[in-house]
Amino acid sequence: MADEALFQFLHNELIQYVYKSAEQGEMENGRCITRLENMGFRVGQGLIERFTKDTARFKDELDVMKFICKDFWTSVFKKQIDNLRTNHQGIYVLQDNKFRLLAQMSGGKQYLEHAPKYLAFSCGLVRGGLSNLGVKSIVTAEVSTMPACKFQIMIQKM
Amino acid sequence: MADEALFQFLHNELIQYVYKSAEQGEMENGRCITRLENMGFRVGQGLIERFTKDTARFKDELDVMKFICKDFWTSVFKKQIDNLRTNHQGIYVLQDNKFRLLAQMSGGKQYLEHAPKYLAFSCGLVRGGLSNLGVKSIVTAEVSTMPACKFQIMIQKM
Repeated sequence: MADEALFQFLHNELIQYVYKSAEQGEMENGRCITRLENMGFRVGQGLIERFTKDTARFKDELDVMKFICKDFWTSVFKKQIDNLRTNHQGIYVLQDNKFRLLAQMSGGKQYLEHAPKYLAFSCGLVRGGLSNLGVKSIVTAEVSTMPACKFQIMIQKM
Repeated sequence: MADEALFQFLHNELIQYVYKSAEQGEMENGRCITRLENMGFRVGQGLIERFTKDTARFKDELDVMKFICKDFWTSVFKKQIDNLRTNHQGIYVLQDNKFRLLAQMSGGKQYLEHAPKYLAFSCGLVRGGLSNLGVKSIVTAEVSTMPACKFQIMIQKM
């Protein structure tokens, strides 16, 4: 519980800090998102190395995705992904019905516009994790009703 | 282990980000430290509310300090403070012989000059925690040999 709260509070501070420092330099919203995403990327890279230290080699891409949905998600967000879908052509959709970093926010449409900044770091986290497993990707997130959230992963073929 | 790594990686990113954004705006080192300290302060405020939710009322200042050294420290830094000393006039010295956020750094004097930026957040954390328990203080840290570290708390009488 303690560490969980620590991460959440720190994550909130981070967002606030990035947006505050942007105000002074008149940086647009998009660049804040990018910065948060980049931080997530590097944290994801570090984390996945720890998490996979003792796991067996992955069979294929889908196997990697399952690891992200189960082990990785549980470690970071304290629950598994609720639904994983794929078109078998390099697109994966991960649905989390109660995403941890949105769970503290009010439901309804009132704060929907603020959702992207609370998701950017996590998108980076997934992208960084996948990247260190040799899977290059683009990760985006969308929210229709809080605190449910969909992460879309597009694999970049090399 | 997972959450622990998450906090450490995120903490590192935070420091890097604060110092990087300072470079662009030509902010001096002192202000970076202050910003990190302030973030720690707010996180500490939040955390202490969670941690003390079900604890009994504290008897006195020393009782509060013991809570910080044991419960708070264990929750955040995964070990207790090794030594608590006080002059009974409002100064407390908390010694941690293997401080978690310095443990990954090389010992010796090589990186000693970088220690302050890795301690600022934690100083704020303690100050914020104490503040929400009604104890106003100034918290500073010093390192003589890594990864040992001393936190000095000066109580501000109101």
